[in-house]
Formats: sequence, C-alpha cells, structure tokens
Amino acid sequence: MKQTRAFIPTLKEVPGDAQIVSHQLLLRAGLIRQVAAGIYTFLPLGKRVLEKIETIVREEHAAIDCVEMFMPVLHPKELWDQSGRWDVYGDELMRMKDRHGRDFAMGPTHEEVVTTVAKEYLNSYKKLPLSVYQIQTKFRDEQRPRFGLMRGREFIMKDAYSFHATDECLDEAYNGFVKAYNNIYARCGLDFRMIEADNGQMGGSGSAEFMAIADVGEDTIVYNEEGTFASNIEVHDLQVGDPSPDGVGVVKHAKGIELGHVFKLGTKYSESMGGFFLDENGEQKPYIMGCYGIGVSRIMMAALEQRNDENGIVWSKSLAPFDLHVIPVDVNNTEQLAAAEQVYADMKAAGFDVLIDDRDERAGVKFKDADLIGLPIRLTIGKGITEGMVEFKNRQTGESQDVALADLKDFVQAQYDALT
Amino acid sequence: MKQTRAFIPTLKEVPGDAQIVSHQLLLRAGLIRQVAAGIYTFLPLGKRVLEKIETIVREEHAAIDCVEMFMPVLHPKELWDQSGRWDVYGDELMRMKDRHGRDFAMGPTHEEVVTTVAKEYLNSYKKLPLSVYQIQTKFRDEQRPRFGLMRGREFIMKDAYSFHATDECLDEAYNGFVKAYNNIYARCGLDFRMIEADNGQMGGSGSAEFMAIADVGEDTIVYNEEGTFASNIEVHDLQVGDPSPDGVGVVKHAKGIELGHVFKLGTKYSESMGGFFLDENGEQKPYIMGCYGIGVSRIMMAALEQRNDENGIVWSKSLAPFDLHVIPVDVNNTEQLAAAEQVYADMKAAGFDVLIDDRDERAGVKFKDADLIGLPIRLTIGKGITEGMVEFKNRQTGESQDVALADLKDFVQAQYDALT
Repeated sequence: MKQTRAFIPTLKEVPGDAQIVSHQLLLRAGLIRQVAAGIYTFLPLGKRVLEKIETIVREEHAAIDCVEMFMPVLHPKELWDQSGRWDVYGDELMRMKDRHGRDFAMGPTHEEVVTTVAKEYLNSYKKLPLSVYQIQTKFRDEQRPRFGLMRGREFIMKDAYSFHATDECLDEAYNGFVKAYNNIYARCGLDFRMIEADNGQMGGSGSAEFMAIADVGEDTIVYNEEGTFASNIEVHDLQVGDPSPDGVGVVKHAKGIELGHVFKLGTKYSESMGGFFLDENGEQKPYIMGCYGIGVSRIMMAALEQRNDENGIVWSKSLAPFDLHVIPVDVNNTEQLAAAEQVYADMKAAGFDVLIDDRDERAGVKFKDADLIGLPIRLTIGKGITEGMVEFKNRQTGESQDVALADLKDFVQAQYDALT
Repeated sequence: MKQTRAFIPTLKEVPGDAQIVSHQLLLRAGLIRQVAAGIYTFLPLGKRVLEKIETIVREEHAAIDCVEMFMPVLHPKELWDQSGRWDVYGDELMRMKDRHGRDFAMGPTHEEVVTTVAKEYLNSYKKLPLSVYQIQTKFRDEQRPRFGLMRGREFIMKDAYSFHATDECLDEAYNGFVKAYNNIYARCGLDFRMIEADNGQMGGSGSAEFMAIADVGEDTIVYNEEGTFASNIEVHDLQVGDPSPDGVGVVKHAKGIELGHVFKLGTKYSESMGGFFLDENGEQKPYIMGCYGIGVSRIMMAALEQRNDENGIVWSKSLAPFDLHVIPVDVNNTEQLAAAEQVYADMKAAGFDVLIDDRDERAGVKFKDADLIGLPIRLTIGKGITEGMVEFKNRQTGESQDVALADLKDFVQAQYDALT
C-alpha cells in the first residue's frame, strides 16, 4: 500500500487527554480517532490490526468446532425482561426507543438473543452440544469512559456461547475454550495470566479471567504462599510484594488488563427463557450453557501497552498492520524512487504485506513516523542505492545493516522468520 | 465442517410471514432468523455468505486504492447538527440518549463522521485524493420493515467516501468505483443493471444506481425509445412493455432490487463541517467529495431471488457458503461413514470448503436439505461404496453420475472449475 493513499495521520505531540502510553500510541501512530467520549473510529492501520486479531480468533475457534454467526445490535426489551436483566443491568445498558415507542437494548452481551435463536433448534439431545460465536460491536454506557480502548462505550468483542446436555459436556467445552484462549493471547504476542474471577453480573458455577500484565489496568493480581494464583482484586493502591487485604496472598502483579473471560453459566438463561430439550428418556430438561468473551479491540490496547519503546510501537509479527516498511529517502530522486518501487513490488510478490512511504517528506520525518508506526522490518532506499545497497532495520532489536539488492529477498525472509 | 456442529436449522414449511421467495429461502435454508421486525440474526450459513460477499467487496476496493477503516455506530448529535441532517432526516434516523442525556444518532450513513475524522488530516492538496470505506452495521427505522433483508432496520452496508481537490479528480475516482461495482455484482453472480438515479436525501451533482433484475423489488426500470436506460421510478403497478407515466420511455423490467449507489456529493459536507484544504497557491478550499454504498446483506437477498428452483437455493460458486456437500447416506453403516470421512478429508486437503452431513437422519431428509441449502456439488456415499463408487451431483445443472473413488478428486476439480 502507498502511504499517500493509506490515511495514516501520525501526530508529533502527545495528545493531552491520553494518560497512558497505549492510548497515546493509538492516537499518535494514527490507529484510532475519538468521535465522542469512549467512542472511536478505527483508522486504516488500526483496522488492519483488528483484522489480524480477528483472524487469529477465528482460526482458534474453528479448531474447537465453534461456528461463527452474527447477531443484531438491537435487542427487544421483551427478551431482557425474560432473563430479568432489563431491570437489574442499570445505567450501563444503552437503551433506545424505535419510532413506534418500542424499547430496545443495545447489546453489551448476547445471552438473551442467542438463547432465543437456539431454543427453536435445540429441541433434542441429538442436537447437542452446540458452540457458536460472533465478532461484533458491543455497547456499554460507562460512567467515565477512559484510557482509550480500555474503557470504551462502543467496542469490539468476540462472544461465544455453548449449549450442553450434561455438566461433563460443558466442562469439556469450557476446557477447549481455555486452551483456545491461551493460544489466542500467545499468538497475539501478549504476556498474560489466566486467573480465577468473580462472576459479576453473569451468574454461574465456574469461571476464569485472562489478564495482560501491565503497568496500567484495573485489577491487582494476588498469588498465595505456594506461588500459584490466588485471586484478583480491584484494589488499586497495592504494590508488588504487598500482602493482600483479604489475607489470601501476596501481590505479584500490581496491575492487569482484562482480556477475556470464560464462564460456566449453568441453566440461568435456558430456564428463564424456555430453552429445553428432550433427553434420551424423553424427559424435558433445560440445556446447560457456557459463555466466553474476548475484548478484541482491547487486545490491541494491551499489545501497545506491552510492546513499545521511546520511539513508538514495537509490533509483534502477528499483529503488525504491515510486515515491511519500504522507505525511499527522497522521492524526487528518480533512482531511489524506482529502486524503492521495485523492492516494494518484489516484496509483495514474495508474500509480504508492504507499506511504501511515497510521501514527499524529509528523511527525518519519514524515519520518525516509521519508528512510531513500528512495522517489524524497515527497508530504506537512499544514497547507497547507487552501489546497489539497501539499509535493513529490525524494529524489534534496533539492529540495522546494509544489504545488497541481489541478496535482499532471502535476507529479509530469514530475518522475518526469526522475528517474534 | 460437520453438519451436527454447524447449526443449520432448516425448515420444512414455508414460514407464513415470508411473502417472497428469497425471504422464504433465507428462513427455510437456515441462513437467518428474525429477532424483531426488520432485525435479524445471521446464522452460520448466512454469515459465511456474508463473508464471501465481503471478501469480493474488499478485493475490488483494494484494486482502486480505497482503504478500509471502521467508524462507530453512535454519532453525537452535534455532528448531525453541523450538516443539518439531524432535523431533516426524520423518523428513519434511529436516535438514543446516553446516561447523561446526550443525544446520539445511530448511523444510517457516515458522511458526518468521515468528514470530521478526515478534516484534521486533509489540510493540504498534497494529502488529496483520499478514498476510504468500511463494512458495517447500519440502522434505519423503516416505517414498515418487510421482505426480510430487503427493507430491514439493521443491515450490513459497505460505504465508501472519497475526497478531492478538483472535479476531474472526483470524476476519475467515481469512474473507478463504477468499474469496481460492476466487478463486484458480476462476481456475485447477479443479473444487474447500472442506471441513473435520483439523489434522494444525499444531495449532489451526479449519481448512478445498481439494480438487480427481479420479480420483486421496489423500482420499475424504464428504457427510452433508443433502447437505452431512461429512468427508474417508484410506480409499482406497471408491467413490462407499458409506457411510463412521465412519457420518458417503456418499462423494460417491472421490478428491480437496489444493490448500490454511487454519488458525487460535491462540497455539501466539507463546507458545512469545515473540511478545507490549502491548494497549490495557498488558497483555502473545501474538498470535493463522493460517496459510494453497497447493501452487503441485500446482495445475499438478491442472489437468492435470482438463483433458486423448486427445491431450494442454487448458489453461484462465488457466494456458496461451502463448495461441496458430502453425504453419507447411513451414518450407522461403518463402511459408508468411513468412506465419507475420507472423502471429506481429501476434499478439504484439495482446498475445498466442505460440509459433511454426519447427522443420523433418513436419506430423504438429507437430500431435501442438501437441495434446499444448495451447495454447488453434492457427493453422496451410499451402497455404491462397496463397489468404490460415489454419486456426484451438480446442483446448478441437476446432472448426476457415479464416479470411482480413485477418480473423484480430479473429477470434482474439473466439474467445479466449469461451474459459474
């Protein structure tokens, strides 16, 4: 992609309202822009990162036979009345009335809708188990939206739901999701922990939370004397090494960013919403459910919080919006521009996603932007091209060296394969 | 994918509230389910078709250097006040108040947001032209939602916006979109016409509409005496051959389904919302805009309206949710099941998307469902497997023949390549 057409509005200054590094980088590297408090546009670079995350999520869900669907944003109030959540969810549930005055919730989560859609079909034990997911825009009217994509009011989530005839079958699916979640966060290049969690408003009989280790975040992670995980608590003034106020252990990570959740829901929704099946003996039973969420846009935030230096973002190979950044130092120099365009074409032909900085800007501006955007490999075509040399730079290690054009493709491939 | 895990709830009966064949097939083949009037869940098969359409849309937009982004559903009222559309849009604009009482529109279209996001960046002629798009859920509060995905209240659209310094540059981009749109609808296997259109609520200086020819639909397509297109009008009781009430021509197609629109917007939004750039002479000017929409979920509907027979859907290769349907006639017959699973694995390894009907159902039920779902090729493994034979059926031509297992891969590939 040509940078002149790519809409990457980088910022030199740190925006005043962005307090944490990931939020600053989201704005400075041109990944997102705020439209209203807690409501953002994903610019092209940010959209590409979302796509990378979503592809990983899709692959790992396909691997556990969880099938993708797509449910609506607007949920009729009647469904939320059946589950009892219309009255208890509080101000965080966004609500609207249609032109006829009918009430709708704007989905923060889809238990009501998925149970309603599934119950027509799941009338027999023969149809169970079933496991479905969607990747979709969710809404939650946070009292104080903050930290960019961490506490937004409109955000992208993957939510999955499973349906079972027995507790054992639920356990098996739950364990499958736990494995898939570990794979997803690892492939996204995150330093994370799986920990037990409170169920909050969801209700149920077993759950775990996945947390990215970070200097920011809203949870404190506590370990017991054996050094294994004990709890995570919402106490924000603890430091690493402090004993926890409940006496359950010692603070190991002062802060964590919640990345996802797995829940055993039990029969709360199937019983309240009429989700019943006939078992082998012709007996009517509510099916047993699980639900499993991942904050897709929040993964981007956590990755930025963990992977940056003083010059900008240091993307993992898996989430980088492009693999390579090709930079002709002077686009008015015919030789440099022609060589850069050839390198661009060759690298695309080799299967890389390539961004070429074809802007008529000073070299310093281009290099600063390249470091800020943080693509894993930078190929600079400058004066050295008269001797057939290109400058290679590894954004992850900071190492750079000159490489002969003739060797470039093999060299880049080997270096790229060695990246994390 | 195994059909027991794929959540494809087919219906034997034609649902009473579905008046047109595409709506009936969407429900009967398990592609969608209604959640509220004009609001639908896309079930796994429907979601797969959406993905096929979206991939075609993405490829054709990449080919014209139009870059993908993702804007929010919620738009602050202030933006719609700037354009003047908050007051004039009427009841079809869905609106909500957040917990603090602030007003938001739920985006039916994104001119206000994209102009606001772009204007910070597009401050110089050097940054123009720019062309961006998104694929996103849109909202429109139809007075009477009807015909399934044709007149929904929550639907999926691709909307693109382009920004230019000169009219000539806009014309060039506009022509690029026209070409891309022709490619997209052709690749989706649709019989369609590009016709001039009224601008409706958009305002502007040039536009065209793309219509799928159909027995249903909400527009009548009129041709002039020379046999070239004259107009499309919303008069619903005309027949082919009738003169049009305005005297502009003769009805050539009684009905059409609107698939998309291309508009030259001019400077309406840039002027009202402060979108200005400095030209080569340092003079401040509003940039010139175009906008370009495609009803992604409506393409699915139009395809079903055009491609069906008395037994169900006849998918084009390009939109089929899977390429092949493998059917073991009796899953309790070990030889049949093992052979079917081998065929399933072999065909996946050959690069096909394969659905295997592993349900313990009668052969008649499986065949009826297979015809209804309408995947291009069906491979039935029944009694013939004892002689090493598989039944091949082409859903598009209805032709079937027995093929030896040893020849199956090459045979299927050749037949698949010959499909439309």
